[in-house]
Amino acid sequence: MAYARKHGLRYTVNAGDPHLRDAIAKHYAYPHMDQAANVCVTTGSQEATYAVIKTMLDPANDELLVVEPAFPSYAKMAALEGVHARSVAMREEDGFAFDAERIVSAITPATRMIVICSPCNPTARVMHRDQVQVLSDALLRRGNDPVWVLHDEIYREQTFVDDAGYFAQHYPYTIVTNSVSKSNALTGLRLGWAIVPRDIAPSLVKVHAWLTSCADTFAQQVALHVFATGSINEHAQWYANRQRHVSRALADSGLRHIVPEGSFYACVRLPERADSLKTAHALAEEHDVIAIPGIAFGRSFESWLRLSWVGDSDQLREGLARIASYSVDARLHAT
Amino acid sequence: MAYARKHGLRYTVNAGDPHLRDAIAKHYAYPHMDQAANVCVTTGSQEATYAVIKTMLDPANDELLVVEPAFPSYAKMAALEGVHARSVAMREEDGFAFDAERIVSAITPATRMIVICSPCNPTARVMHRDQVQVLSDALLRRGNDPVWVLHDEIYREQTFVDDAGYFAQHYPYTIVTNSVSKSNALTGLRLGWAIVPRDIAPSLVKVHAWLTSCADTFAQQVALHVFATGSINEHAQWYANRQRHVSRALADSGLRHIVPEGSFYACVRLPERADSLKTAHALAEEHDVIAIPGIAFGRSFESWLRLSWVGDSDQLREGLARIASYSVDARLHAT
Repeated sequence: MAYARKHGLRYTVNAGDPHLRDAIAKHYAYPHMDQAANVCVTTGSQEATYAVIKTMLDPANDELLVVEPAFPSYAKMAALEGVHARSVAMREEDGFAFDAERIVSAITPATRMIVICSPCNPTARVMHRDQVQVLSDALLRRGNDPVWVLHDEIYREQTFVDDAGYFAQHYPYTIVTNSVSKSNALTGLRLGWAIVPRDIAPSLVKVHAWLTSCADTFAQQVALHVFATGSINEHAQWYANRQRHVSRALADSGLRHIVPEGSFYACVRLPERADSLKTAHALAEEHDVIAIPGIAFGRSFESWLRLSWVGDSDQLREGLARIASYSVDARLHAT
Repeated sequence: MAYARKHGLRYTVNAGDPHLRDAIAKHYAYPHMDQAANVCVTTGSQEATYAVIKTMLDPANDELLVVEPAFPSYAKMAALEGVHARSVAMREEDGFAFDAERIVSAITPATRMIVICSPCNPTARVMHRDQVQVLSDALLRRGNDPVWVLHDEIYREQTFVDDAGYFAQHYPYTIVTNSVSKSNALTGLRLGWAIVPRDIAPSLVKVHAWLTSCADTFAQQVALHVFATGSINEHAQWYANRQRHVSRALADSGLRHIVPEGSFYACVRLPERADSLKTAHALAEEHDVIAIPGIAFGRSFESWLRLSWVGDSDQLREGLARIASYSVDARLHAT
């Protein structure tokens, strides 16, 4: 509490410490969104996402299109706001790669916002630059009221491909959310932000102000330090190295899987007709393996499990081995 | 960051660290709400209030009754949720004392929640035990679906009367919000909570979880320390001493005023027909005195100014003298 003793611990302005907002804007340097006035600092990216949905969507008219597989929070937040959410699932036969044409074909006249988490929780897929370009061009060609893209970049600092696409670099109706939770393993700090076009910022800040007043002043100081020292990327190399080990371990497991392009997840396919929830329970209870059932991320991901690989490498290999062995047993029982 | 280095900084469970929740519940020890399961830890009392309104009120049917003068946040939050808010103003001729009968008479069949901030921002009035009892009894006699009382206790640790009333001690349909912001001058920590009946907690925690996941883990540790060491009340004596000085300064000023019963505000009356917003601007620009115009707290408070007295004693006296002199001038100009 040395900081609090010296400076006290007062509210910042609602949108957050101007120095922090400036540091965030300058670091990502998105066209037309590189000023402090483009940034609203929030209680984690969760509040940022919530405030964006609340600010931008009209429950009476607007629809949120969720690109699946997806973390369930977007649809839940929309439901809390009375906003209708639909999903468009990427295809298993493509390994759930982001497919711009497929997203475009799911847009209806009511669609006012598309939410895309890339790098993706759960699939660990990254939307490549060419696909971001295709979707951006298609949205611009539509004319009419713009369809907004909410690009959840929460795993941006864990990206393992060179051609990752960023909507904010191509498409003017983009809102970006992120935080230091994943980049710096500070989930408990609850310090995130939204980067938005200048004319959206006042409304967003107003909603944020009534939700939580402002983000924790101490957490804002930590984040300022993170950006000032460049340590927003300090864990990136560690994740990149681990990703290579993880990819080998996945290949060695014999399980059908998706090679992680980003985030710190790895997904493996269960045998046909396996129930992912029951499997996850059985793995936890009988084999001491923690995996999130695919069904949590949408029906399209029902036959999959999501694994986290921030833990020990050997434990990951062991976990994969147990899943593989469980899968063989399950397949035997099924026949 | 010694704590973070040692323990990491992970999410807590959504409702907050069970030890902190237990400490809060045990400290206030409200009947039937003295368990960890009755507490949801939030990003300041602002998020607690917001989540309570969102959880408890149905925009299609329910009305929020705001006891005025009041901080504008309750009505703004209700508006953000599409919930109709009405206000019932306490009477100037009573010095804005809380008047249970007046509140009861303002209830309609649509009223589902009454929000009362006691000690009050802005009036510095405290709702006395007898008035809390009268309102509680009247609400219980009503039968039908209960009308909830949201008791905002944010200034509870700055109470200067012996007969302060607490709805949670009398009325089973009470929700209490508070934080360490005012009690421990830690506004920037953004650490608050709601104390709710057991059957309300799961819904409230769900709303809170989608708003912000959980409160800052570090801030929760600070709050745990605050409760474990009893320092939730450590500033109370300082405020009580200052209140005596402030009361004398108010009397000496010759201004019509309300003797503070709680909080760290003092309110003074402007001359007849004075515009509180214009007066506050003029005082700030021409006399270097910061006062919040009464109109910010409802039409009932238009002729008043709210002053904060956490600063220096002599400065408060000087500020009061300048307001008195400005008022005399204004009265002269008006004639």
